[in-house]
Amino acid sequence: MRISELSRRSAVSVPTIKYYLRERLLAPGTPTAANQADYSDAHLRRLRLIRALIDVGKLPVARARDVLAAVDAGDVPPHRLLGVAHAAVSRQTAYDPADPTWRSAQAEVDDLVRRRGWNVVAGSPGLAQAADAIRALRTLGQEDVLDRCLDVYADAAETVASCELGRVVARPDPEGMVEAVVTGTVLGETLLTALRLLAQQDASARRLAGLRPSATPGEPETPHRP
Amino acid sequence: MRISELSRRSAVSVPTIKYYLRERLLAPGTPTAANQADYSDAHLRRLRLIRALIDVGKLPVARARDVLAAVDAGDVPPHRLLGVAHAAVSRQTAYDPADPTWRSAQAEVDDLVRRRGWNVVAGSPGLAQAADAIRALRTLGQEDVLDRCLDVYADAAETVASCELGRVVARPDPEGMVEAVVTGTVLGETLLTALRLLAQQDASARRLAGLRPSATPGEPETPHRP
Repeated sequence: MRISELSRRSAVSVPTIKYYLRERLLAPGTPTAANQADYSDAHLRRLRLIRALIDVGKLPVARARDVLAAVDAGDVPPHRLLGVAHAAVSRQTAYDPADPTWRSAQAEVDDLVRRRGWNVVAGSPGLAQAADAIRALRTLGQEDVLDRCLDVYADAAETVASCELGRVVARPDPEGMVEAVVTGTVLGETLLTALRLLAQQDASARRLAGLRPSATPGEPETPHRP
Repeated sequence: MRISELSRRSAVSVPTIKYYLRERLLAPGTPTAANQADYSDAHLRRLRLIRALIDVGKLPVARARDVLAAVDAGDVPPHRLLGVAHAAVSRQTAYDPADPTWRSAQAEVDDLVRRRGWNVVAGSPGLAQAADAIRALRTLGQEDVLDRCLDVYADAAETVASCELGRVVARPDPEGMVEAVVTGTVLGETLLTALRLLAQQDASARRLAGLRPSATPGEPETPHRP
């Protein structure tokens, strides 16, 4: 297909496709005439992945190129490939090993990981991010949420992760798996936290306002009169 | 106590406390001499809450003042108070009702809310945020995660929210409840998403790399040889 059709089918503009070609995120098409080239379904798939990395994962071009290089290497085992995609889209945290509050929060995370029997490599971004949250909660005197809910969070994380991985392994090729990891990590997080807000509102309505389950979302709340 | 002690006990600097006084987030102390005032434990509690709103919730001063006004009104029922705190710290999304992909994603969220029997008010920030994620997943052709995991996400959200609300209602005063909502919403989200990353890594290690549960987190992974 021509670049115009590639643009239409991918919903990525021609100037943006040309930019990805210049940046070597996308391989050149097969030349057919001066200034014309033919693009394949492989280009379309690659454009979807680039879009997931850059638009959804908010990756800088250089890091997107690293992820694509791992996909293209062909000899990277799937679990490592997922690690590359994961690391690329995870938030970075400013871990300071000289700070004792950081060190004790990190020890708490290590304890949890050990207790759950989780297979996690050193330097995994989730370790620092969890320590960051625990440290902030303790600094602010809000550790009651840890006493009450830490294992509830861990149970929820396990259930969600297991479902999400089922979807990743169902993909037929490395490109599709990485795409599923990137979109799932970023958009799955947005969805999960949005549903958590809604469920919190529901829990508050029931326990604090005595409302019954609603059959009409979006309508004003009516107090429950038993 | 003097402002210096208030600063020491709250870990908020004197210039920052003076800024909060000028911005009317913090009530003036009782004057004891020219340029001196006495501050109470109520000031200390209020400073903790301000810190939660501004440092953790990243609220602009004007919105923090609105939340504090609701806390101080005294006649706002707890469920509404939590709604105010919630709305203040939730992410805003650019909902465009003219866009059909938005409208159908929103209808999907409304369906889910109805199916779960969640008590949710119109305009709740979670509704738009969930629609945003669903719309992006469909636009990118990644809706398999919705088919497989939407109710798994909703179950996880309910379990987590119920535990979190138990902690909020255990607080003895409105100030403490709002503080728990703000810190729980923001830092609980960071913690939950970090644990989800770790659980995803574990699920990937087991299903893709054949690793057994690890008893030594942080050490290099060893393949499982049955």
